[in-house]
Amino acid sequence: MTTSDQAKPDVSLTDFQAKIRDMYYEKDVQRGIDGTFMWLMEEVGELASALRQGTHEERCGEFADVLAWLTTIANVAGVDLGQAIQDKYGTGCPGCGRLVCTCPMQEKP
Amino acid sequence: MTTSDQAKPDVSLTDFQAKIRDMYYEKDVQRGIDGTFMWLMEEVGELASALRQGTHEERCGEFADVLAWLTTIANVAGVDLGQAIQDKYGTGCPGCGRLVCTCPMQEKP
Repeated sequence: MTTSDQAKPDVSLTDFQAKIRDMYYEKDVQRGIDGTFMWLMEEVGELASALRQGTHEERCGEFADVLAWLTTIANVAGVDLGQAIQDKYGTGCPGCGRLVCTCPMQEKP
Repeated sequence: MTTSDQAKPDVSLTDFQAKIRDMYYEKDVQRGIDGTFMWLMEEVGELASALRQGTHEERCGEFADVLAWLTTIANVAGVDLGQAIQDKYGTGCPGCGRLVCTCPMQEKP
């Protein structure tokens, strides 16, 4: 992080997931996981496009959208994102177990 | 959220992004956005598979991986995820502006 992040919002994943749940859960459940996943894919495409040729502001918006759709699917699937992250990345890289990954470049992490 | 979430970790997006940066940034920058995006796509495929036929535990792991790879690309692109989320969803649905979305079902949100 930079030295200018004192004023940045410190959004918790639990709070964000709850907010997205309040905002969209009723519609998400009607759509189901498959229908909601299609929207996630559309947003992933828009993120790819913004990474290729978007402004910084457009990229920020697309990252937010992908994260929101991922979160909304987690809500329908009954997955707690904060817990999932803690379980998988809380003690280090899932590949090598280190806090600074030492897995070979050609391997996944 | 349920009533049993007192013990759940309250991971902040800023802390998680910093942790992923410490863990992977050096390798991410070498890979670049394009190469890193390919790994995100692989994880999205694994998430789809887990949603179709995985256990709850496998789904949790795949959600964590997609979020981690999204975060790692945000690091390379210089995007602050917490700020991006706050800017786009902090005051309500980007479509209708409400805290409980009232956009028509056929529209994106």
